[in-house]
Amino acid sequence: MNFILASTSTLPGEEFLEYLKTELEILFSQVDEILFIPFARPSGISHEEYTLKAASFFQKIGKKIRGIHEFEDYSTAIRDAKAYFTGGGNTFLLVKTLHEHQLMTLLKDNIYAGKPYLGCSAGTNIGGLNMKTTNDMPIVYPSSFDCMGLVPFNINPHYLDPIAGLKHNGETRETRIKEFLTQNQETMVVGLREGNWLRHKDGVLRIEGSQSTRIFEYGKESYEVETGFCF
Amino acid sequence: MNFILASTSTLPGEEFLEYLKTELEILFSQVDEILFIPFARPSGISHEEYTLKAASFFQKIGKKIRGIHEFEDYSTAIRDAKAYFTGGGNTFLLVKTLHEHQLMTLLKDNIYAGKPYLGCSAGTNIGGLNMKTTNDMPIVYPSSFDCMGLVPFNINPHYLDPIAGLKHNGETRETRIKEFLTQNQETMVVGLREGNWLRHKDGVLRIEGSQSTRIFEYGKESYEVETGFCF
Repeated sequence: MNFILASTSTLPGEEFLEYLKTELEILFSQVDEILFIPFARPSGISHEEYTLKAASFFQKIGKKIRGIHEFEDYSTAIRDAKAYFTGGGNTFLLVKTLHEHQLMTLLKDNIYAGKPYLGCSAGTNIGGLNMKTTNDMPIVYPSSFDCMGLVPFNINPHYLDPIAGLKHNGETRETRIKEFLTQNQETMVVGLREGNWLRHKDGVLRIEGSQSTRIFEYGKESYEVETGFCF
Repeated sequence: MNFILASTSTLPGEEFLEYLKTELEILFSQVDEILFIPFARPSGISHEEYTLKAASFFQKIGKKIRGIHEFEDYSTAIRDAKAYFTGGGNTFLLVKTLHEHQLMTLLKDNIYAGKPYLGCSAGTNIGGLNMKTTNDMPIVYPSSFDCMGLVPFNINPHYLDPIAGLKHNGETRETRIKEFLTQNQETMVVGLREGNWLRHKDGVLRIEGSQSTRIFEYGKESYEVETGFCF
């Protein structure tokens, strides 16, 4: 497989995907057009607006973007595409839409066959075993939480350390992930901080980016691994 | 109906339910025993531990607590109880468990019949139309997101204003609720800050507590209402 699963699309103060530009030139070096999956609709923007946003980045590296919503038949669009990008937004809306159109397994099969894939945030969540470690609000009810399993664990994108002194009784991210583990003891969770991504290339799955990464397993203390760590 | 739906169980630096003590003496004045529903299991603690925590508060106001898990038949426990308290934790786990045992509608019917109910956090979410505005992580897959509809809207407990200067690309609470509204245009959302609660008594549904409350409706700017506001 040949994919990047990134915690976020955008670093503070930077343009959309700017921090990944060199990586994306390599990931998509063999293709000139990428199928964009805009179903997660961040802030509720339309498929068209979101696709324009993606296209305006990718034209900088000479790639054409087409939104899957432009095709009459979504399955055919996935089958015919040479490469994919699933943007962030709401994971529930993304997963519901993919399952409704029977696209989750089809997309997975095409990525397993070697076509390049970029996921950011919600698009990264669907690379995990299931979406049970998303941070998103359950604004719609998907027919299943199952995802593609491009990696043999779950991902928590935008992983956030506890904020010292915050007077608020909501759970920290760590507490939430530990609650997940009590109900899903066999599933490891990779807390991917912003600025980090998972890279699968030449048969190796590596953590890359500027931060260390927090790993959660049932019955163990959570621990940090450094950039360059291979699974 | 006679209920309190509170944003949180605990204010910073205070004991569990301390800030609601006077209100709870009034809410439960006619009963000496309360059925506790511990299914949300905060931080994954056991039903037993959670019930002990609830009991240790309620003995201060002379009420006995029994956990629903102590009963052989959960439906009978709900039917026979004189009053209810559903504690916070993970809303997905709470809703999944209630639906699995066909308890959601049964609990609702008993509250509609006038039995006192206290919900905190996840226990407040289930008082709304559905759980699509919870903040919790989807650690398990419920058979439905539908809830009791004790109020004709959805609640977002622990409502949190954007944190200025936070360098993190996760959505603010306001953005998440606006995403909800794009997919659920007919449903109002009440963003209940910590320290606030909804009180239904003598046919009136009021907001009470120390903070103002933020209301979200599709196609309108969100707005604040003060304590004492009646729906």
